[in-house]
Amino acid sequence: MAGNSFGNAFKLTTFGESHGEALGGIIDGCPAGLILDFEAIEAEMQRRKPGQSAIVTQRKEPDSVKFLSGVFEGKTTGTPIGFIIENTNQKSNDYSHIKDVYRPSHADFTYDKKYGIRDYRGGGRSSARETACRVAAGAIAKQLLKDIKITAYVSGVGNLQLDSDYAALDFSEIEKNPVRCPDASLAKQMEAYIKEIRKEGDTVGGRVTCVLQNVPIGLGEPVFDKFHAQLGKAMLSINAVKGIEYGSGFAGTHQKGSEHNDLFNADGSTKTNFSGGVQGGITNGEDIYFTVAFKPVATIMQKQETINAEGELVEMQGKGRHDPCVVPRAVPIVEAMAALVLADFYLLNRLSKI
Amino acid sequence: MAGNSFGNAFKLTTFGESHGEALGGIIDGCPAGLILDFEAIEAEMQRRKPGQSAIVTQRKEPDSVKFLSGVFEGKTTGTPIGFIIENTNQKSNDYSHIKDVYRPSHADFTYDKKYGIRDYRGGGRSSARETACRVAAGAIAKQLLKDIKITAYVSGVGNLQLDSDYAALDFSEIEKNPVRCPDASLAKQMEAYIKEIRKEGDTVGGRVTCVLQNVPIGLGEPVFDKFHAQLGKAMLSINAVKGIEYGSGFAGTHQKGSEHNDLFNADGSTKTNFSGGVQGGITNGEDIYFTVAFKPVATIMQKQETINAEGELVEMQGKGRHDPCVVPRAVPIVEAMAALVLADFYLLNRLSKI
Amino acid sequence: MAGNSFGNAFKLTTFGESHGEALGGIIDGCPAGLILDFEAIEAEMQRRKPGQSAIVTQRKEPDSVKFLSGVFEGKTTGTPIGFIIENTNQKSNDYSHIKDVYRPSHADFTYDKKYGIRDYRGGGRSSARETACRVAAGAIAKQLLKDIKITAYVSGVGNLQLDSDYAALDFSEIEKNPVRCPDASLAKQMEAYIKEIRKEGDTVGGRVTCVLQNVPIGLGEPVFDKFHAQLGKAMLSINAVKGIEYGSGFAGTHQKGSEHNDLFNADGSTKTNFSGGVQGGITNGEDIYFTVAFKPVATIMQKQETINAEGELVEMQGKGRHDPCVVPRAVPIVEAMAALVLADFYLLNRLSKI
Amino acid sequence: MAGNSFGNAFKLTTFGESHGEALGGIIDGCPAGLILDFEAIEAEMQRRKPGQSAIVTQRKEPDSVKFLSGVFEGKTTGTPIGFIIENTNQKSNDYSHIKDVYRPSHADFTYDKKYGIRDYRGGGRSSARETACRVAAGAIAKQLLKDIKITAYVSGVGNLQLDSDYAALDFSEIEKNPVRCPDASLAKQMEAYIKEIRKEGDTVGGRVTCVLQNVPIGLGEPVFDKFHAQLGKAMLSINAVKGIEYGSGFAGTHQKGSEHNDLFNADGSTKTNFSGGVQGGITNGEDIYFTVAFKPVATIMQKQETINAEGELVEMQGKGRHDPCVVPRAVPIVEAMAALVLADFYLLNRLSKI
Repeated sequence: MAGNSFGNAFKLTTFGESHGEALGGIIDGCPAGLILDFEAIEAEMQRRKPGQSAIVTQRKEPDSVKFLSGVFEGKTTGTPIGFIIENTNQKSNDYSHIKDVYRPSHADFTYDKKYGIRDYRGGGRSSARETACRVAAGAIAKQLLKDIKITAYVSGVGNLQLDSDYAALDFSEIEKNPVRCPDASLAKQMEAYIKEIRKEGDTVGGRVTCVLQNVPIGLGEPVFDKFHAQLGKAMLSINAVKGIEYGSGFAGTHQKGSEHNDLFNADGSTKTNFSGGVQGGITNGEDIYFTVAFKPVATIMQKQETINAEGELVEMQGKGRHDPCVVPRAVPIVEAMAALVLADFYLLNRLSKI
Repeated sequence: MAGNSFGNAFKLTTFGESHGEALGGIIDGCPAGLILDFEAIEAEMQRRKPGQSAIVTQRKEPDSVKFLSGVFEGKTTGTPIGFIIENTNQKSNDYSHIKDVYRPSHADFTYDKKYGIRDYRGGGRSSARETACRVAAGAIAKQLLKDIKITAYVSGVGNLQLDSDYAALDFSEIEKNPVRCPDASLAKQMEAYIKEIRKEGDTVGGRVTCVLQNVPIGLGEPVFDKFHAQLGKAMLSINAVKGIEYGSGFAGTHQKGSEHNDLFNADGSTKTNFSGGVQGGITNGEDIYFTVAFKPVATIMQKQETINAEGELVEMQGKGRHDPCVVPRAVPIVEAMAALVLADFYLLNRLSKI
Repeated sequence: MAGNSFGNAFKLTTFGESHGEALGGIIDGCPAGLILDFEAIEAEMQRRKPGQSAIVTQRKEPDSVKFLSGVFEGKTTGTPIGFIIENTNQKSNDYSHIKDVYRPSHADFTYDKKYGIRDYRGGGRSSARETACRVAAGAIAKQLLKDIKITAYVSGVGNLQLDSDYAALDFSEIEKNPVRCPDASLAKQMEAYIKEIRKEGDTVGGRVTCVLQNVPIGLGEPVFDKFHAQLGKAMLSINAVKGIEYGSGFAGTHQKGSEHNDLFNADGSTKTNFSGGVQGGITNGEDIYFTVAFKPVATIMQKQETINAEGELVEMQGKGRHDPCVVPRAVPIVEAMAALVLADFYLLNRLSKI
Repeated sequence: MAGNSFGNAFKLTTFGESHGEALGGIIDGCPAGLILDFEAIEAEMQRRKPGQSAIVTQRKEPDSVKFLSGVFEGKTTGTPIGFIIENTNQKSNDYSHIKDVYRPSHADFTYDKKYGIRDYRGGGRSSARETACRVAAGAIAKQLLKDIKITAYVSGVGNLQLDSDYAALDFSEIEKNPVRCPDASLAKQMEAYIKEIRKEGDTVGGRVTCVLQNVPIGLGEPVFDKFHAQLGKAMLSINAVKGIEYGSGFAGTHQKGSEHNDLFNADGSTKTNFSGGVQGGITNGEDIYFTVAFKPVATIMQKQETINAEGELVEMQGKGRHDPCVVPRAVPIVEAMAALVLADFYLLNRLSKI
């Protein structure tokens, strides 16, 4: 109810501020008997962590996960998996300048109004640092889902758009460049553009596309917890996300039914996939694909006029080490949230029939 | 968990199939002491009901709501509000032809696979008829929210797009035309186009835009239950929805932070509103606006090849009375779901401070 | 959250006041493919209904259940099962005399203080009539649980106590007498005593014992949702219940560990069963047995002094037709709630292992 | 759903095994602005911790709580409060002897059957060590509830019973003796008896009574989440609890309505309090009192025959340092769970009226 849990059968609850002693979470509902690959979990953490390349924030955080419970002799026991991620690089002084200032397009103002108090150090709870817990939990969900393939990639940075269909792309290229765009030459342009943006002390928005393959038929719980409704909530809960479309999405609003309907093959698969792998809120075995819109990061290194808690107009300028464009690091976060949604519905589907 | 409930503090649970005896629902958590305006509830039902104009399905359903509990002497009592909506016009024979057939881009196939059984009459639970219960509950939520103004309208039908900013529109025009588009001349074109589409025995997609005004500051529960995340789930749970964007949405991915940031006025309001009224998942007092994408209705009156439960290829053709374009009737549904999200967060916000 | 739902995987939500048009509920999560025996459901309703014998209230209510959804061609479809029970015998005038009066040991005072309004007709939502919905849902849960045997009986009326161990009793006797006590001769005394109490215009308390047999090993979710914790909540949620003990219960507090420990047989069964079929919150395959304490019904036919809403002392006397002792009719309610707890954990247990 | 969360508005989720690196929890929903008294929290931990007196286990655990989030400059921020309690004294070798053995009346057998794996070190998740997290969270709940007075005490050890009414007791005596019995002379006998029991290598059961005073009118959510139903679940979820009765409890089953009804005074208070402070599931402002039954601790220092995972009969004997009687240390746990129930309903009650 207070909003820090996600999922039902496979449920993640997180805690932690960007500058507290540690962040962490509890996974409640991971079935017993899962052999955990801790290196795979660490690898996911590395994909999200700051300082991994020249185009992301240079903040240094090891971001390694310490598991405290729910695992015995390498296997999950069916009891809650508690974990923490220590904040080793807090630099609270970096934030003294915003103690009394509401940064434009940040959560400073809304948290203060809602709670009457806020942890102003680095955005506190509203910091994207919280997503580290999601990536840790998502990495475990991925291991539960073995055969399901979850692949996210950058499909847009500002005006540089990747428009080709996902099927035409070489996914093996994604992790080969710091932008995580499967088109190598476009990736180079994006990288150059992001560096230029940073030089300007500015930031830019972008898009992440994600494809879920080998998803079993039957996942999703109509009517309110439709597969794509819960998936949409998961994506919109990620910092800076302003929209999601799956399957034909907004382009589908221009189509006619005679064009959009996905006709069946005799084996139950479909000849086209405008539906994006979901019918009536339930997965149909086709690929699920969706695109997520990220606004530009609000913290810029240029002077901006803003107000303080007293409502006085003041001038401020971003400090510290921030991402000029969030999408490269958002890729593993999008995958993690998709994995959490899949794991939850994968388990819930065991309850569908007598 | 089985997915038929929405909300926490103001919680709606629905039941019912399109061709059962009745649909209905329970609202649990409506506070005591609310004087209900039953005519206003009926008015919302009329906005959604079939047969209301020449461009929607001609099915005849009175769709009137019978309240069974939770109201005494005209006021809510704090106990659950149970209600039913009878199915007076079932015509099950209309559906005998699809008993064993999986209609393309319908939920027939996925329900059968998930549950091993389906009520094939008119789509059963997957029918959009279920949204009648949402409109009834949303109408009560609207009355709880008094001062908040919820306005949805059609902003696109196929290629006919309304691109002007919502602030430039005359909302009083919306209910004056059957399309529910605030631009009277565009509405005429849309109406003509929908009639033409129906003549072709085809259907077409469209968009609905919604604006929430006078929303109190502080609604929304970070981090997973952000205001716009829950709103997105609500919209994506509506039949035929393929995407949602709020505030700057997908266009915002092309912007720079220096353009996108909403600078404050001294009073805490903002000079621009690219954020769409939400910061860090919490409402900031500015208008909340979003657009929802609807795919074309899957039932068309043209011959299509499909398969039956035995996996044999068969030819089928839609029968009965269906909407050529769903967006005119979707307007009150979008408003209802927005009202449910607002009512829930409005109540939950009472728990934020000691 | 507003408290009208019970269960997670097999979830019942109820609505309705004793004197509204109807009561009803929604079962969300009943798996698809269950063939429903409607006569068996009606039979359970008959066991609870008023007027069934000379020692219960003579109110006449058919209490038959009308199912509105979730069932197709005699089978559950996996969609929510909505049902209503009409109030055919409302006699609201019976209650005019308590419109402004707070009856002693009733919920009149607390509802008024909590909600600022109450439906004074027959206790409104606080009436035990609400349990009719539980019996209807429990009857479906029983059908899902096939092999599990749920047997409740009256083990005490006032000072007339049945002290023999359940294993020594002849359960086939229970439904042969109106008290539902398996000891025929004690049943006769109880029956006579209840009639005497009614002559006095008084009421008396009693006990119901329940035994769950053939329960699979592994039901229950530690640590907060232990099998017996959820069972205890279920029982304490029944009107007039003041206590529950299971297994050795309060007597066990006098024992030593060397006496109380249940030693294993080689096959994993235990030589004794002081634990009452649950270890660490999880069923161990032994019989689960527990006893529920019911206070005397608050409505008596004698003059009592009480207060009205203005805080004035007034004299009142019960009218209408009430139970002199609630336990005979409580037997099917205890069974129904036990069935709901079992059904929920039975389904949740499918999530324990990968 | 997996059972490791308690509460709705004020929600505790716990993790941790007795011999993992740490236990901990997350409190989600503690309102912002509460000034935390950390010494008071530590004081509660000390009341529960092992080794505090000669009659409890001599295991040494500092049991101090480390808070990781949700608190800033001494005040709660409205974000989740994460905390851990390190296991400093694990001595896993103490448990090698039970690696393959199912201890009688322990959860070894049921966990193994449910999950197919168990952490055999000290009972793992089923260890009462988990209750340390409840005490930590309960201590915060107590601070939220300021004016409400929560007092638990030992009312029985084996056959030594404290029968006087709580109103006749001197609560200031409770913490003056290691048994936590408010009757000094009975406490001495209990203490002597517990020492004797330990000499025998045996254990004994007991009772804890708890009184809640100055509880506001209106707490509790009918019909399933009645105040006392949720309270009963809370108590039954504590290790070794076999029963609960509140108000007149089991004795009330012998009473007549004319004796049991609590008549009102003009001010709305009642002349008697057989109802135990709750009417229709809602608090009425009178004292709430209840008694909890604890079975004897299962681990005894005497030889017992039992079985191993292979179903072979083997002989075992308890080792290590265990409580001969659990009730003295259970007192703060009962208070903590009562505080969690009160805090949850205290917040939820803000949602009752418009």
